Amino acid sequence: MEEVMLSVNLVWVMLGTILVFFMHAGFAMVEAGFTRSKNAVNIIMKNFITISLGGIVYFLCGYAIMFGDTAGGFIGTSGFALNGVDDIGFFIFQAMFAATGATILSGAVAERTNIMAYTGVVVLMTLLVYPVVGHWIWSGSGWLTDLGFVDFAGSTVVHLTGAVAAFVAAAMIGPRLGKYGDGKVNVIKGHSIPLGALGVFILWLGWFGFNGASTLAADPATVPGVIANTFFAAAAGVVATVFYTKFRYGHIDGSLTLNGALAGLVGITAGAANVSIIGALCIGLIAAPLLVEGVRFIEWKLKVDDPVGAIAVHGICGIWGTLAVGLFDIGGQGLFYGGGITLLGVQAIGILATIAWVSVTVTGGLFLIKLLVPLRVSKEEEIAGLDVIEHGTPAYEYQEIFKSSALRNESFAERLTHIGKPQSVPEEHVS
Amino acid sequence: MEEVMLSVNLVWVMLGTILVFFMHAGFAMVEAGFTRSKNAVNIIMKNFITISLGGIVYFLCGYAIMFGDTAGGFIGTSGFALNGVDDIGFFIFQAMFAATGATILSGAVAERTNIMAYTGVVVLMTLLVYPVVGHWIWSGSGWLTDLGFVDFAGSTVVHLTGAVAAFVAAAMIGPRLGKYGDGKVNVIKGHSIPLGALGVFILWLGWFGFNGASTLAADPATVPGVIANTFFAAAAGVVATVFYTKFRYGHIDGSLTLNGALAGLVGITAGAANVSIIGALCIGLIAAPLLVEGVRFIEWKLKVDDPVGAIAVHGICGIWGTLAVGLFDIGGQGLFYGGGITLLGVQAIGILATIAWVSVTVTGGLFLIKLLVPLRVSKEEEIAGLDVIEHGTPAYEYQEIFKSSALRNESFAERLTHIGKPQSVPEEHVS
Amino acid sequence: MEEVMLSVNLVWVMLGTILVFFMHAGFAMVEAGFTRSKNAVNIIMKNFITISLGGIVYFLCGYAIMFGDTAGGFIGTSGFALNGVDDIGFFIFQAMFAATGATILSGAVAERTNIMAYTGVVVLMTLLVYPVVGHWIWSGSGWLTDLGFVDFAGSTVVHLTGAVAAFVAAAMIGPRLGKYGDGKVNVIKGHSIPLGALGVFILWLGWFGFNGASTLAADPATVPGVIANTFFAAAAGVVATVFYTKFRYGHIDGSLTLNGALAGLVGITAGAANVSIIGALCIGLIAAPLLVEGVRFIEWKLKVDDPVGAIAVHGICGIWGTLAVGLFDIGGQGLFYGGGITLLGVQAIGILATIAWVSVTVTGGLFLIKLLVPLRVSKEEEIAGLDVIEHGTPAYEYQEIFKSSALRNESFAERLTHIGKPQSVPEEHVS
Repeated sequence: MEEVMLSVNLVWVMLGTILVFFMHAGFAMVEAGFTRSKNAVNIIMKNFITISLGGIVYFLCGYAIMFGDTAGGFIGTSGFALNGVDDIGFFIFQAMFAATGATILSGAVAERTNIMAYTGVVVLMTLLVYPVVGHWIWSGSGWLTDLGFVDFAGSTVVHLTGAVAAFVAAAMIGPRLGKYGDGKVNVIKGHSIPLGALGVFILWLGWFGFNGASTLAADPATVPGVIANTFFAAAAGVVATVFYTKFRYGHIDGSLTLNGALAGLVGITAGAANVSIIGALCIGLIAAPLLVEGVRFIEWKLKVDDPVGAIAVHGICGIWGTLAVGLFDIGGQGLFYGGGITLLGVQAIGILATIAWVSVTVTGGLFLIKLLVPLRVSKEEEIAGLDVIEHGTPAYEYQEIFKSSALRNESFAERLTHIGKPQSVPEEHVS
Repeated sequence: MEEVMLSVNLVWVMLGTILVFFMHAGFAMVEAGFTRSKNAVNIIMKNFITISLGGIVYFLCGYAIMFGDTAGGFIGTSGFALNGVDDIGFFIFQAMFAATGATILSGAVAERTNIMAYTGVVVLMTLLVYPVVGHWIWSGSGWLTDLGFVDFAGSTVVHLTGAVAAFVAAAMIGPRLGKYGDGKVNVIKGHSIPLGALGVFILWLGWFGFNGASTLAADPATVPGVIANTFFAAAAGVVATVFYTKFRYGHIDGSLTLNGALAGLVGITAGAANVSIIGALCIGLIAAPLLVEGVRFIEWKLKVDDPVGAIAVHGICGIWGTLAVGLFDIGGQGLFYGGGITLLGVQAIGILATIAWVSVTVTGGLFLIKLLVPLRVSKEEEIAGLDVIEHGTPAYEYQEIFKSSALRNESFAERLTHIGKPQSVPEEHVS
Repeated sequence: MEEVMLSVNLVWVMLGTILVFFMHAGFAMVEAGFTRSKNAVNIIMKNFITISLGGIVYFLCGYAIMFGDTAGGFIGTSGFALNGVDDIGFFIFQAMFAATGATILSGAVAERTNIMAYTGVVVLMTLLVYPVVGHWIWSGSGWLTDLGFVDFAGSTVVHLTGAVAAFVAAAMIGPRLGKYGDGKVNVIKGHSIPLGALGVFILWLGWFGFNGASTLAADPATVPGVIANTFFAAAAGVVATVFYTKFRYGHIDGSLTLNGALAGLVGITAGAANVSIIGALCIGLIAAPLLVEGVRFIEWKLKVDDPVGAIAVHGICGIWGTLAVGLFDIGGQGLFYGGGITLLGVQAIGILATIAWVSVTVTGGLFLIKLLVPLRVSKEEEIAGLDVIEHGTPAYEYQEIFKSSALRNESFAERLTHIGKPQSVPEEHVS
């Protein structure tokens, strides 16, 4: 019977693995949709590199540093290339998580970052930065676990880690051309809200695996609550953003509402197994204004240019979610359930330690990377868009049609014939 | 061993829950793709509000009204905010279904409905309209269950309920500007067939969870048949629409064929566990011409403007699917299997009762909502598109580029430079 | 307890079934994205026909020919319309695979093939061509199984079969207008890389079901390895294509990198249960240059026009994956693990037999189809695009807007008003 139970848990964790993998499609669509079409291929390439190279680096080293025998509760030291590791199912589930930190970063530095520098960051994140935080909190022998730190599925381990890295990188790489100037903060809109919305739906879907399978067992006592909490925090995030942006800006803001779902999801990640549905609703409700004001604060006050709002979504709401366990835990440690402030204090320590570790290592790492390759593309390339120069193709046919028509000095009527009518693609180039 | 079986069933029902959740992404993509780009953000916002607010309302009230202790087989009366409810897994699965009825409606009233009025409809549907029908049929103590009414996964409970609400709302709100005039019926095409097709694929995927997990158990005796029937009814719907539109219109119609898959899926929903694969194929084959003629009848004869064809897909095929159980049931009650017309009669009673209940409550509800907010947007807003005014952003970059270029009186060549080349987004506004 | 285990395996195989179904969404998006917008509805219709009609034909005949009582190890002869077949779960899983072969073909013959001729090919593939290869290798009584041929999830059965059919069909139907001429090979770019990328992510997701559930049991000893191998081969395919195209062409090629993931996935399909993660990484690493050079070879040397690169992805990498089992098998038969060349030889025999069977039957079948309907559309239709003529609608609103504006001789400023501002769709036609 234990054997059958192993199989049941296997199916659940493999389902989670598959869903977390698919979150990378969600990230790619969100980041592409929320940025300009001239950089869409580039951001998609970065997402493919993150999940692929990140997964391989985690296999070779990251997993060992995260789950290997501990050195003082700080870092793992065994199991490189899965040497001596038996539980491949647990490993592959963790590998899908590992690339997520770097992917969070990719959105924040979109539209201006050299892809080779970005590739270096992916290695840095999955080799060292993320695994060390993971070791502290999820290895079972980390110093934060000893303190009693609670982070069920990674508001801190995954989301805050990714967001701090994103903040450091976006600040070091600098804003996109045209974002700030003449004392103004300019809005640079994304190129496709529907693509971004699809990405958010895919992320929300994947989060059921992200949180749900973090139980590591198909336990009827915990899984339904985790799934319900995950759903309701996101739902509350959406509803609260709808009303908050209506009140704040006079309209139900399109892209903020999409991010509102993610804000709720990041918020519930730490406490999905520890709070009630009412708690989950509260976490999502509060995540929404934090998101809206957070985006504004980072963009306007700190003047850090984050095209997709990743730092607010994953960082501010990651902190909120981690602290919220100390407020809403129904297992006896939540402040609002008579548990005092002990857990709240421990959660704060974990947050500060993570921010310190990630900001120092990513700053250092970026300085090293900068010695090898420039962190950003040239001004000319940024203006022209990264797609054609770096990847040999525009993202969309209509860009090519219009540009090549213009080069041929065709009239507008002639140009139109290229859309949907005669051979609609220029044949100048042979790959 | 029973405990292990609980875990297995849990995994199956949670998988279903997740898949039904994802259907909302499918609805959003279908509805966005089948309507004009100037309203794409708005329809996506409505879908996010539906799943989010609908889920919360169902948690607070709807579930109690649907599954609480019965008052005369008509309405549930206990379990508000899950008070006294143990089975969170069953609840969250049901919550994903609950928002679907309102989502069906969102497509039918797209491109002209005030989002606040729509929000009121979502509350109405998930608080009262849908839960009462659900109580009659799925609570175990409803009057239709007592009669022997069969609706496995909701051809009537979900789809007919949503479609009747859609019909009432679309009729009361009125057609889009330009749809009817000078004795003509004008076609208003959607803006992206590929987006709509992706949505249909996602819905088809989600339907495997919708029907499959409605068994509530991973039973090898029923689940494979349910999955196979679900697939084959949709497949037959597609093939029949391909040939029927080729015969009827001279071409294999793009959007009707996509809807043909949905017609088959709605049709099989009531009887997925009750018919053979041959029965499923017949149900899908007949659903297709019903869809094609139904769309025509609603649009041309009744002059009700339903941009996405939701009323025909979910209403006409919902009725067909519910009746079809009385024809194709292989458990002894199907007319074609010697079961007489008893079940057929009961199914008809259920259909009529549902139509009566939903049309009365939704009509009344819309009159109440109309006292608070207008049902449709202003004529100016409808012409300009709902996205920029209500949500602060167009759906696509190219819309913005073209419009702001025109405002700046740029030449065509200058305009082209905004696509993919220099900073491709205007920076007039700061959010 | 065996009963519970049946349920667990059921859930796993049904999950796989659902995921493989969803791969057809992935194929549709890849093929639409990698071809021109004027043919996007057409390729989507073909994908809907493939999964639908293909599934029905496989139900009626294909499954019997594949898994029925054998006639000499060559062909199955019983179980038509599932007559006498008990295991519906296994059948429906297989049915999802069956349509894949034809779908591979649809991409290679895109943008020029008559949809009726294509429909004939779908019948041919799912009725006879694919089931016979499947019988040889997967029925348990096929002659290749007797020889010891290993093809876990179908590098040969599904992918090579589809690719050989694709090659024959693309060669017989001929290249798209404008592809070759004046001694030049012209690049005809696709219309949306983001759509193609989404498709690749969906395919990668589906592949976890394709390979994972091919175990047919939720076995903790094999499933995690299969999932990990599937992931790492794809990851290696991406990383290798990134660096190989950077080296070969000077840029990280957008569409080749997307295909690089598929190359790794096709490569690992035969040996997913037979190799180590290191083996999977090697398979993916080698698949990448094979893909890049394969695309070039087919397009430039053989002058066969394959718009999406399907022949290289599924054919060349299908062969590579099948042979790779003979190299990397860790069960004692891999050359690199001291297993000699016996398995390698058997694998080669299976590859040659499959190529022979598929090329002969598809050539013959296409000659027969040609007697009934032309294989390609008229020159006029190809230039105008297949969507409007064959399916009554362009894929995108902007195509229609621009064309009808041009017909009305509107100025550019007037045209712009149709995008997102006033009624943005012409109302000339009534369906």
